[in-house]
Amino acid sequence: MDKLLVLFTFLGSAAALIFAVITAKRVLRFPEGTDTMKKISAWVKSGANAYLKRQYFVVAVFFAAMFVILLVMALCKLLTIYVPFAFVTGGFFSALSGFIGMKIATASNARTANACREGLNRGLRVAFSAGSVMGFTVVGLGLLDISIWFFLLNNILKLSPNEISSAMLTFGMGASSMALFARVGGGIFTKAADVGADLVGKVEAGIPEDDPRNPAVIADNVGDNVGDVAGMGADLYESYVGSIISASALGVAAFKANGLSAMAVPMLIAAIGIVCSIFGTFLVRTKENATQKNLLKSLSRGTNFSAIIIAVLAFPIVWFCLGGKASIGLYFAIIAGLLSGVLIGQSTEYFTSDTYKPTRHLASKSETGSATIIIGGLGLGMLSTALPILIVAVCILVAYFASGGGSNMNMGLYGISLSAVGMLSTLGITLATDAYGPVADNAGGIAEMAGLEPEVRQRTDALDSLGNTTAATGKGFAIGSAALTALALMASYVNKVDEVAASAGKAVDLTFNLTNPTVLVGLFIGACLPFIFAALTMESVGKAAQSIVIEVRRQFKEITGLMEGKAEADYASCVDLCTKASLREMVLPTVVAIIAPVATGLILGYHGVVGMLAGATATGFLMAIFMSNSGGAWDNAKKYIESGAHDGKGSDQHKAAVVGDTVGDPFKDTSGPAINILIKLLSMVSIVFAALVVRYSIF
Amino acid sequence: MDKLLVLFTFLGSAAALIFAVITAKRVLRFPEGTDTMKKISAWVKSGANAYLKRQYFVVAVFFAAMFVILLVMALCKLLTIYVPFAFVTGGFFSALSGFIGMKIATASNARTANACREGLNRGLRVAFSAGSVMGFTVVGLGLLDISIWFFLLNNILKLSPNEISSAMLTFGMGASSMALFARVGGGIFTKAADVGADLVGKVEAGIPEDDPRNPAVIADNVGDNVGDVAGMGADLYESYVGSIISASALGVAAFKANGLSAMAVPMLIAAIGIVCSIFGTFLVRTKENATQKNLLKSLSRGTNFSAIIIAVLAFPIVWFCLGGKASIGLYFAIIAGLLSGVLIGQSTEYFTSDTYKPTRHLASKSETGSATIIIGGLGLGMLSTALPILIVAVCILVAYFASGGGSNMNMGLYGISLSAVGMLSTLGITLATDAYGPVADNAGGIAEMAGLEPEVRQRTDALDSLGNTTAATGKGFAIGSAALTALALMASYVNKVDEVAASAGKAVDLTFNLTNPTVLVGLFIGACLPFIFAALTMESVGKAAQSIVIEVRRQFKEITGLMEGKAEADYASCVDLCTKASLREMVLPTVVAIIAPVATGLILGYHGVVGMLAGATATGFLMAIFMSNSGGAWDNAKKYIESGAHDGKGSDQHKAAVVGDTVGDPFKDTSGPAINILIKLLSMVSIVFAALVVRYSIF
Repeated sequence: MDKLLVLFTFLGSAAALIFAVITAKRVLRFPEGTDTMKKISAWVKSGANAYLKRQYFVVAVFFAAMFVILLVMALCKLLTIYVPFAFVTGGFFSALSGFIGMKIATASNARTANACREGLNRGLRVAFSAGSVMGFTVVGLGLLDISIWFFLLNNILKLSPNEISSAMLTFGMGASSMALFARVGGGIFTKAADVGADLVGKVEAGIPEDDPRNPAVIADNVGDNVGDVAGMGADLYESYVGSIISASALGVAAFKANGLSAMAVPMLIAAIGIVCSIFGTFLVRTKENATQKNLLKSLSRGTNFSAIIIAVLAFPIVWFCLGGKASIGLYFAIIAGLLSGVLIGQSTEYFTSDTYKPTRHLASKSETGSATIIIGGLGLGMLSTALPILIVAVCILVAYFASGGGSNMNMGLYGISLSAVGMLSTLGITLATDAYGPVADNAGGIAEMAGLEPEVRQRTDALDSLGNTTAATGKGFAIGSAALTALALMASYVNKVDEVAASAGKAVDLTFNLTNPTVLVGLFIGACLPFIFAALTMESVGKAAQSIVIEVRRQFKEITGLMEGKAEADYASCVDLCTKASLREMVLPTVVAIIAPVATGLILGYHGVVGMLAGATATGFLMAIFMSNSGGAWDNAKKYIESGAHDGKGSDQHKAAVVGDTVGDPFKDTSGPAINILIKLLSMVSIVFAALVVRYSIF
Repeated sequence: MDKLLVLFTFLGSAAALIFAVITAKRVLRFPEGTDTMKKISAWVKSGANAYLKRQYFVVAVFFAAMFVILLVMALCKLLTIYVPFAFVTGGFFSALSGFIGMKIATASNARTANACREGLNRGLRVAFSAGSVMGFTVVGLGLLDISIWFFLLNNILKLSPNEISSAMLTFGMGASSMALFARVGGGIFTKAADVGADLVGKVEAGIPEDDPRNPAVIADNVGDNVGDVAGMGADLYESYVGSIISASALGVAAFKANGLSAMAVPMLIAAIGIVCSIFGTFLVRTKENATQKNLLKSLSRGTNFSAIIIAVLAFPIVWFCLGGKASIGLYFAIIAGLLSGVLIGQSTEYFTSDTYKPTRHLASKSETGSATIIIGGLGLGMLSTALPILIVAVCILVAYFASGGGSNMNMGLYGISLSAVGMLSTLGITLATDAYGPVADNAGGIAEMAGLEPEVRQRTDALDSLGNTTAATGKGFAIGSAALTALALMASYVNKVDEVAASAGKAVDLTFNLTNPTVLVGLFIGACLPFIFAALTMESVGKAAQSIVIEVRRQFKEITGLMEGKAEADYASCVDLCTKASLREMVLPTVVAIIAPVATGLILGYHGVVGMLAGATATGFLMAIFMSNSGGAWDNAKKYIESGAHDGKGSDQHKAAVVGDTVGDPFKDTSGPAINILIKLLSMVSIVFAALVVRYSIF
């Protein structure tokens, strides 16, 4: 049975990786276009490469330090010896996912622009193929890491299911740490460049977006690749792996004797999800002169097909592994997760797309200036938390009680964790539809800078605008799965505390009563963490953007002939500034995320930690939705005005909307998505440091 | 013993009320100044009166409906028969506090302006006296309501301490409902008028603030009185009463046999707090030509003196009532509360005063436009939650464990509730220093409109600017005590569930484990409520402001000679519009606050309710601080720029700062303070509907 499992997951990951390689080769066969396009593309590539190299260096120092700490803890018997190594591999594969995604994205930008010269369908194929490479690399590497460790721990070292799941949880911490660095660093880079370029270029100098005279324009494009692509890759690698390993761990707790089979379920669902997603990608094609509706339909066809097939195939998997009545309930949990992801995505779309009332109403607030559009956007984002909260609430209750949580708590928690796996099972294709957005966006930039025909830009814009909608759906999956996975990890933490206390011969009280003051205080502190985290990251974007503003102003002033197009801007200096600023600024938020649970634990004990995790998950979920949706709505309100509403581009209303969009930039692309990672990293760190906390805490 | 207690509390409340009457008489002896001043003052008075009358009518309908519902529930044995009546008196006294505060404030505006013509010290005396009337009315009426009910239930009806505290908790629900209406309605009124007046008058027409040509200028002044004064009065009445009755209820639970003495402690501390506060007011005076520092010192002298005396006298009270080792611990809890209030106030001041780095740094962001100052302000507010969270966390732990919560949970919870009482014990004088701000603000408006000498406006500005600082301290007390009281009420809810379940013969499980999905789902829903509430109230301000903008634009266009000062604006129409809009908009948020706990309870059961209360308290505390501090910092950053920094008034930087201030208006004066009330109202409603939930919930 266990050999079959390893074989299947290996095959699943291999399928994903082979598909990614084939797709990548196909993409690279497309020509890069004119010499100017090649030159611009080369700048972006070298900027992104340089950034990632330096980022990985900083991260490597961090990982080395953490490795030593974990090794010392392992030698002190506070951890098993596999933990430091698992931690490092999690980080490595997460970084690799981001790196490969960035490589293919930067290689496809000019190719997409060039393909758009020939037609929309061709452009879509190139951009979507690039997204697919990224999507399947992420899921392939995720499942590979899982199956290697499973093989090593189970088949070679012959550990018990409990020990296996416990060790595997810790490579989640590596993945989460890396993901947080990538999201925060990349998010700061991309938004600093974007805000800086817009504030001086668009607002002060009055030149259009993506104008080659703007010294920050290459940095802006680099930012899309290192933030929206590499950051997202590392992020979703972490989500994917996190959901699978937390479900595995809870499966062992729920099924004890039959633990191996329960561990198998999430891995097999992930494997089968990959195969379904590959089939789904073949359905994504569109006819020439397609409307945006056609394009969206074409993408939805692919994802819906995959989702339906998985929904069908999940049942035999659960039945085969676990059998009996339990499997029916667990199957419902998986379906609940799958459905919730879709519903949260639709709620996001409703609140942020300019085809619906909320964003149109927001755009109308531009009539009374920037203050009212800001107030309106903040209100919209806050209000938009209600629906996702209800969806997740129903999902939790269904997953828990359908799985038999009423009589056996561990079964219910396993059900919740499986619903997160169900939600992410189609990640291969949803990530493809998500990652293709930045590629199309960059293609548009290159088309503009290279002075291609206007219809090329129109086509890339059509692809890009569609990307905003698919990104909204993608965010739904990312946020929803983050909340469910974080809850599953919280439950794993409780099991871990039980385990380490037993091995240390300490008595523990595993009720986390809300009338217990340490739980309550933990809850307060945890609830505060997403606020602090959001504040730190926003402040960092502000600081970094300020340095870009100063540099761009300097170049406009000092480089003679720049504005007339006779001299070339010094793009490299802006890229360099963004790199330095984002690397400097990404460290503090990540360190806060790692120190907070350890400090809380050492002072308040494990009761405080559980309170903290619950508080951080609840507020983090809310803040992530609030910030993402406010930002998305501002962005699309601006686009709606640019399309001609409320006196269109250049009007006072448009200026007000630009202010909203600028405020929304760090909201939706830096702070919001990073909070998803934060809430899982907090749990992972808590699990790894559980033994330390149980032994040495004050309370 | 119990007769002595009633006597003491009666005497305490009598002292407060008599002092308020004497002070009011003294204020009214001051002349109102010139005929123009009298005329303007009369407009403001009649506007405020008209608003409150109509508000009370709407509220009366709500109270009548709730009275019937509660009466029916009482007849169905789901409540005791005292509840509907207690509910109504709570609402009545809360409204009365607001009403009297408004009356004295509107009577003192012109008098303060006139006194400022003679000198700063005279101006301070009048404004501070008006604030004192308000402060002591609130505490006097609060304690009066408590002692009347206590006398009735204990001495006349001879109920058990448990029944007494239980009935008394329900008049807290009346007070909270009224307070929420007053805060939300008043908050919408004042900010709609303020934003509307600024957007058209200052920004579009370019006329100064408080210019009599602006049709919304009287509405703006009326708003200060119905929002910042009447709203705050009802609000703090609720906080004061809420903290005392929740402590009484927990005292009964903790001391069972000796319940009456435990109930006595919070009441006696409140009574003695009144006396100390009265003495404190006599220390508030300043010399002519005082700097702002002198003024602040003079106010601090009064509050610090009161606080120190209470800190000394609290010990004999606790010792006398409860004796033994327990009283030492409880005394520490009281002191912890007293200290925490001061520290939260100082943290607020640090983050929002332009004498410190954060606000100055925020002002510097105006250099790169309104978007960066908005991002900066949001980040500042979010970051500023960290310190208050830590202060409250330490306070909770100290109060709980010092009171012996480690061995007896109920003692610990009683300690937490006493810390809230300690925090609010100096309310008489802190509220006086807080409420004097709007009086000084209005005096400035009248000075401007009546065309008084520039030095008068300078003096009122000095008083007003000081008011911003004292308001920050006041907010610290309001927010801190709200969190502690909400936690105490959550504990009371648990006791209540136990009680009603016992009388219904139902078995209950009183552990609220965070791994229980109904608790978790409740937590998610509760955490979401402050977000929804903030969104609804902000949206309401936006809507109401929009209607004012349209009306002011209309008047500027249609009334010929208005801009030249030859024709008079139609002030009444703006007042009327604000009134209608705020009354229409205040209903939904309040109804949400009342329905949410009942609906959550009926679906998720009492476990879900406790989760909801914990979630709402944690997020509510954070949101209240975030919104208040962001708003305060934007306001002061704007003032800092107006004082000459960053190119001063009229510059682009100033315009950017005005956008920040406008966004901050609903943050700090509508949504933020209302959330404090929300989290307590949720608990009160839960307590009142506990029997219904325990009997009929689905889960």
